[in-house]
Amino acid sequence: MSRATILFSAPDRPGLVARLSGFFYELGLNILEASNYTDLHGERGARFYMRVVVDLAGLAAPQAHDKLGGSATRSAMEAAFAERIAAPLEGEWSVGYEDRVARVCVMVTKDPTCLYDLALRQKQGELPCEIALVVSNHPTLESAAQSFRLPFYALPVTKETKPEQEARVLELLKRHDVDLVVLARYMQVLSDGFLRDAPPVINIHHGFLPAFQGAKPYHQAHARGVKLIGATAHYATKDLDEGPIIEQDVERITHALGPDDLVRVGRDVERVVLARAVRAHLERRVIVEGRRTFVL
Amino acid sequence: MSRATILFSAPDRPGLVARLSGFFYELGLNILEASNYTDLHGERGARFYMRVVVDLAGLAAPQAHDKLGGSATRSAMEAAFAERIAAPLEGEWSVGYEDRVARVCVMVTKDPTCLYDLALRQKQGELPCEIALVVSNHPTLESAAQSFRLPFYALPVTKETKPEQEARVLELLKRHDVDLVVLARYMQVLSDGFLRDAPPVINIHHGFLPAFQGAKPYHQAHARGVKLIGATAHYATKDLDEGPIIEQDVERITHALGPDDLVRVGRDVERVVLARAVRAHLERRVIVEGRRTFVL
Amino acid sequence: MSRATILFSAPDRPGLVARLSGFFYELGLNILEASNYTDLHGERGARFYMRVVVDLAGLAAPQAHDKLGGSATRSAMEAAFAERIAAPLEGEWSVGYEDRVARVCVMVTKDPTCLYDLALRQKQGELPCEIALVVSNHPTLESAAQSFRLPFYALPVTKETKPEQEARVLELLKRHDVDLVVLARYMQVLSDGFLRDAPPVINIHHGFLPAFQGAKPYHQAHARGVKLIGATAHYATKDLDEGPIIEQDVERITHALGPDDLVRVGRDVERVVLARAVRAHLERRVIVEGRRTFVL
Amino acid sequence: MSRATILFSAPDRPGLVARLSGFFYELGLNILEASNYTDLHGERGARFYMRVVVDLAGLAAPQAHDKLGGSATRSAMEAAFAERIAAPLEGEWSVGYEDRVARVCVMVTKDPTCLYDLALRQKQGELPCEIALVVSNHPTLESAAQSFRLPFYALPVTKETKPEQEARVLELLKRHDVDLVVLARYMQVLSDGFLRDAPPVINIHHGFLPAFQGAKPYHQAHARGVKLIGATAHYATKDLDEGPIIEQDVERITHALGPDDLVRVGRDVERVVLARAVRAHLERRVIVEGRRTFVL
Repeated sequence: MSRATILFSAPDRPGLVARLSGFFYELGLNILEASNYTDLHGERGARFYMRVVVDLAGLAAPQAHDKLGGSATRSAMEAAFAERIAAPLEGEWSVGYEDRVARVCVMVTKDPTCLYDLALRQKQGELPCEIALVVSNHPTLESAAQSFRLPFYALPVTKETKPEQEARVLELLKRHDVDLVVLARYMQVLSDGFLRDAPPVINIHHGFLPAFQGAKPYHQAHARGVKLIGATAHYATKDLDEGPIIEQDVERITHALGPDDLVRVGRDVERVVLARAVRAHLERRVIVEGRRTFVL
Repeated sequence: MSRATILFSAPDRPGLVARLSGFFYELGLNILEASNYTDLHGERGARFYMRVVVDLAGLAAPQAHDKLGGSATRSAMEAAFAERIAAPLEGEWSVGYEDRVARVCVMVTKDPTCLYDLALRQKQGELPCEIALVVSNHPTLESAAQSFRLPFYALPVTKETKPEQEARVLELLKRHDVDLVVLARYMQVLSDGFLRDAPPVINIHHGFLPAFQGAKPYHQAHARGVKLIGATAHYATKDLDEGPIIEQDVERITHALGPDDLVRVGRDVERVVLARAVRAHLERRVIVEGRRTFVL
Repeated sequence: MSRATILFSAPDRPGLVARLSGFFYELGLNILEASNYTDLHGERGARFYMRVVVDLAGLAAPQAHDKLGGSATRSAMEAAFAERIAAPLEGEWSVGYEDRVARVCVMVTKDPTCLYDLALRQKQGELPCEIALVVSNHPTLESAAQSFRLPFYALPVTKETKPEQEARVLELLKRHDVDLVVLARYMQVLSDGFLRDAPPVINIHHGFLPAFQGAKPYHQAHARGVKLIGATAHYATKDLDEGPIIEQDVERITHALGPDDLVRVGRDVERVVLARAVRAHLERRVIVEGRRTFVL
Repeated sequence: MSRATILFSAPDRPGLVARLSGFFYELGLNILEASNYTDLHGERGARFYMRVVVDLAGLAAPQAHDKLGGSATRSAMEAAFAERIAAPLEGEWSVGYEDRVARVCVMVTKDPTCLYDLALRQKQGELPCEIALVVSNHPTLESAAQSFRLPFYALPVTKETKPEQEARVLELLKRHDVDLVVLARYMQVLSDGFLRDAPPVINIHHGFLPAFQGAKPYHQAHARGVKLIGATAHYATKDLDEGPIIEQDVERITHALGPDDLVRVGRDVERVVLARAVRAHLERRVIVEGRRTFVL
């Protein structure tokens, strides 16, 4: 059995759940999961968000053939959805297929924690993806990548070589057919141009945004004497640390922990927060709306 | 605008979301919120659970009149749902109306924490209910109840007078038209007969069930040296501390806390857990399935 | 048995634990609790912090008489501590006595949650203090205060009358012999002059400082799409929301909660955080060091 | 600079903090950290627990030489502590030295999560130990161990070969000079004899003890419909799942998670709980008292 997951948003109006569920019902595609939310106070006015998971087995049924004009393929389904649902309802949508496994590029520098975490989770079946390659600006983590049999590319970068290095990374993303880039403690700021040309990029910020933006957040947290430290996973946008937040969490600390201890405690939060965010993205649960996300 | 909330469960089959949402769409009743879940591994086999909140304004529209045979009332809607949805799908269902505010009886003994908490939340609009009365087996909390202008009944109970006392409580529940009983640290075990005749009863157990059942759970927790203590809100059933769990939470403790400190820490967990459970019940989010609950 | 609690800090040097514990041992005052911490990276260099709770029963013993020169009183003990410990070690210190119960002024505006919470905890013995009075700039919470038999003063304030109103509050604090002011959702900024003349002031900020300073933090949090909201209890200083943090906590939220829901969720965090901070202060666990606190 | 950590417990009496801190002061050994706790309600009566970290640099000073009779070595210090402190106070004690790095044996079966976690933390300096070897009853994790350059021994076990297999493990522990055994999801029950002859053993139980003892705790949790699942790290004793608890934690779950999801969520809790417990043990913070632990 293969599944498709549809994310949809549109201006709110009566009957949207019925319209969407009716569409799939008529095709004979059983709805396995459905969740929706109407945001009454959104920046674009009241808006409806829905996630639907359907069983594609129904595409083989006579019902789907008839409804889709004798060509019950995925592209016929997509064309019908665009025409009958998205267009009249002025909706935005995307679709993903379970058997089209997402390909992920993990970018790192020297800290191995998040890389090990993602690689191990992928191996244990927690993350529905393949890790296509690991890119780093340092050679440090090569053996870690190799222990999971992941292709590793060390592409050092300096201020001067940044355009060239980013071009090589973009070329690797293209060659490896990458759907998602995960910055797993990659200690470089990506250029606007890179972010424009790359697939979606998820970053882990080792602080509780919007507090402690920028570098050395744990040192900032220590100096301010906070009692909790956190981590934030967000889509990378050209405004650093301002991208839409996917997931956050915190851990309790005390005065007895110095900045180095905060780094240690923070690592545990970071890797869990990053893994949850990557998982939510890969399961197609996240809809971005301006600076916010809806995680359905 | 008034709303109705429908809870529905049935054996899983294709098209259930479409069937239910289509039913309301045809009547012109806009779906404001919908969530559903299919439990593939349930004791009764794969089973579908859904919560739908609809805008009743549509009952006044011509569409509803036509579809319901010229009598677009709530009872006509209920009859149609029973006939067209519940019966053919072998479903179990219930409906609640926002403007029919639930009436709650809070039962207490001497500890005021949960009583104050519920009364204050109700007053601040956090709990969609009226607190119709407070019943206690001790007079201690009379002034607390009175400070919120809540009718207070002190009905002492001994082993001998239990049947009589419970009969009087049942009579009060009937007279005050009570929909929900909340045991807010009521230190008596209710008889099977009482539970059979009373409306739903939610209890707060000051322990993390299923650990530490029975009396003095904090003393048990201290003796065992656990590092977290918890509280559990559940529907009361004839098997003490075995009813379906609605909500649980824990708080971290250390060896430096004695049994009395655990009572203090536990109180904070108890009242929050109880309030969340009562709120979930009042918002009609809870479906009981055997010993489990689905909180939609 | 009565107890004294000593808070002490000094530049770090060898033998400090032995020096302090030896001092009390020689007087025959048994140490009931002791905890200490050395901050190696403080702004004033490596610094030692210690909290000691001693049993004052020993003041009646011959040993104490001898060591204190025949006058084994609390003031003799304090004088000896100042001379033999604090002066040679360049230490800062304070002492509190269990039988000298702290007197607290709770300041409120319209929101009753924190007031009820503090009053109930005090009544149940969770907070070692008396609530001497409640001061508000609105009459709203008079009956709430009265239900706990707490003196209530409504002192409205406008921009023009602020100096006069604050003078009246200061006069009340003096008349009621207040040791601690708790801002339990008092929606006014206190002047520098007030803070200079008043006893210590603890404020609850309904946000996770240093994020979301200033007004309407929950609306800020909603617009930014954060996944956790928090509350921060801190000493009030002339720089608003910049005082030393005593306690913080957070609660998880989702996109499905609007700003009003965040207010509700936030209330639960606020009252627990405020109560913990007040309790820590009253138990003399908090040492302020610049913008940080050490909670021993 | 090297450090020693002393754990001490004794029947409570006046002056214990002064006695212990005085002892080290006289030797010229500066106290770097000290914490103590008196349990008034213990099974052996009121009892005092203390952890002291001292700077051993002082052993080279003339003061220590004099006080220890001209032989200021570690063994002289230990002998003096035994004679002057432990014996007269009827205390129990142990000492560890920072430069005598603990040697750990990690025992596993097939699940790699905890092994990777411990190995990575050790490599990053979070755990003050060396991982001397990995022992498993399956060959599955050999390459994982090798990627961290850890000696790996696959010692399959059946009911019949258990005595022999355990004897071989004991022999390995001896040969590798192991101080601590960590059962990182080792799916075998160790015999009483093994536990008697082995160094301390820490086990991770994938459930919130004392609920859900025994096998398949996540399936038990699912059937009972709990809303939180947990993990417990404890010293292994001959009564399975009854050993003294070192650390516990929980994670929130919903009805929407099946038993397999609970396993996934549980893994995140397990590894963090196990790492915290191992760290606390290695930092010599844990004193066992009957079925409880004091983590200082």
